[in-house]
Amino acid sequence: MKWPETITIKEVGPRDGLQNEKIFIPTDDKIAWINELSKSGLTSIEVTSFVNPKWIPALADAVDVMAGIKREPGVSYSALVPNRQGLERAFAADIDEAAVFMSASETHNLKNINKTIPDTLPVLKEIVQDANAAGKKTRGYVSTVFGCPYEGVVNTEAVVRVADSLFDMGIDELSLGDTIGVANPRQVQEVLDLLLKRFPSDKLAMHFHDTRGMALANVLASLDMGITVFDSSAGGLGGCPYAPGASGNAVTEDLLYMLHGMGIHTGVDEEKILAASAFIQEKIGQSLPSKNLQAAGAHDQ
Amino acid sequence: MKWPETITIKEVGPRDGLQNEKIFIPTDDKIAWINELSKSGLTSIEVTSFVNPKWIPALADAVDVMAGIKREPGVSYSALVPNRQGLERAFAADIDEAAVFMSASETHNLKNINKTIPDTLPVLKEIVQDANAAGKKTRGYVSTVFGCPYEGVVNTEAVVRVADSLFDMGIDELSLGDTIGVANPRQVQEVLDLLLKRFPSDKLAMHFHDTRGMALANVLASLDMGITVFDSSAGGLGGCPYAPGASGNAVTEDLLYMLHGMGIHTGVDEEKILAASAFIQEKIGQSLPSKNLQAAGAHDQ
Repeated sequence: MKWPETITIKEVGPRDGLQNEKIFIPTDDKIAWINELSKSGLTSIEVTSFVNPKWIPALADAVDVMAGIKREPGVSYSALVPNRQGLERAFAADIDEAAVFMSASETHNLKNINKTIPDTLPVLKEIVQDANAAGKKTRGYVSTVFGCPYEGVVNTEAVVRVADSLFDMGIDELSLGDTIGVANPRQVQEVLDLLLKRFPSDKLAMHFHDTRGMALANVLASLDMGITVFDSSAGGLGGCPYAPGASGNAVTEDLLYMLHGMGIHTGVDEEKILAASAFIQEKIGQSLPSKNLQAAGAHDQ
Repeated sequence: MKWPETITIKEVGPRDGLQNEKIFIPTDDKIAWINELSKSGLTSIEVTSFVNPKWIPALADAVDVMAGIKREPGVSYSALVPNRQGLERAFAADIDEAAVFMSASETHNLKNINKTIPDTLPVLKEIVQDANAAGKKTRGYVSTVFGCPYEGVVNTEAVVRVADSLFDMGIDELSLGDTIGVANPRQVQEVLDLLLKRFPSDKLAMHFHDTRGMALANVLASLDMGITVFDSSAGGLGGCPYAPGASGNAVTEDLLYMLHGMGIHTGVDEEKILAASAFIQEKIGQSLPSKNLQAAGAHDQ
């Protein structure tokens, strides 16, 4: 098997992880954590979200977090942006990259964004064009690529249509999300097989959730297809707060363990990520899903 | 990617899972659990161990468990057997299959069996030959194939030597154990690449632990190599009792979720395994690592 030699990891824990945690992490703790992550060798950190705080109270301190972090050279600091008002706040906070988001399935898009897919596209187009005009990078997230909690299986043609629209707007990269963690390696390869006929592999990122334990197997299946960018969360933040141990995003340190063991370069320091995960685990106040963090803890005893 | 169409899952939770749990599960609960597993479509269950109870008190009731379970047609009930005395007890308990065990690394073998590898081989040979003479199947376990807690990296040549010795004795199947859960997909493929030059793929089983979250990715890497037999534990039993959430064996239901999602046949009913895992989780009294069990629990709420 021939795998890529170098992989880019995009740390989404501060945004996708924390937005799904029940507890509000104090702003200073978020800042301290992101500062730790910044010194690990990561080149991309999704810091927060400029969605209306009414919808995501856990990230209501977006402006203060952006203002408080110490920026490291070579790290791109991105944030989720839902509309033009959000982009203005994000500009004021001096983000490096704006991430727009929508779903491949109509029902999830409607429930999550309160708009149909056709009504969402013009809003995202404004953001992407304004951000590009301001010299910012843009990323598009597509949710429910591998399954929708309301509609079940999602037709890959629907994913292709959304991907086409987003690239037509001018996004630099598309992140394909297994939002509810239902994908399996065969499905990953089938979907990628179709998408890679239309889009170059270096424009696609995979965003897996570990809800059913599939995240790293799906990463491996994606590596087989030549994918080189993966989203993950330090500690595996973002699990359902009502189910102890339930998993959120792919775990950054577990992903690093696998990639480094396979001889794949990431530029990220595993030990520094583990330390950052231990820090945020203490703030969250319960065990995070990270296997390598647990294994390190067992060693300590 | 071409994967096998049918996979055999060997359930090792009652032995490898429970032997690593801190708590003694009452004999009647073990029996009730194994009876549930027996009705799930599994064709192989490792019920217990006839190692001296002094060493594994959690399985001190081996004889009673074997006597108490209701055997289903088509299910092979196996047990771990350390020596001739153990085999006699196992014969008296009417096991279908005897499993012998040793390590690929000298230090682990010495610490675990209290004998050098050269001194272990004749003991195992007696067991395998007596079991075969009695018409029983035999399985060989090799521990520390991908790494040793005392020696670090293990030379694959050492694995090949042990495998040669075990097949020469007459074992029917060899189970390659990542005892401390350190393997990665590239290492799995490199080791298998060497072993499959000497042994047919239907004689090899993979036995992964999920200590660092690699179990399913390593299963996928093994499927790529044509491996068709995998060991796993319902619920993911067998984690370190001192590290909450720490993982034991590959999780049977998570493995089933992946394989069935990939269109691979196992003959095992996921829902029945989930129910059996929920049963034993309640007896253990703390959350097991199983992601699908946690996801099912989250749905219930």
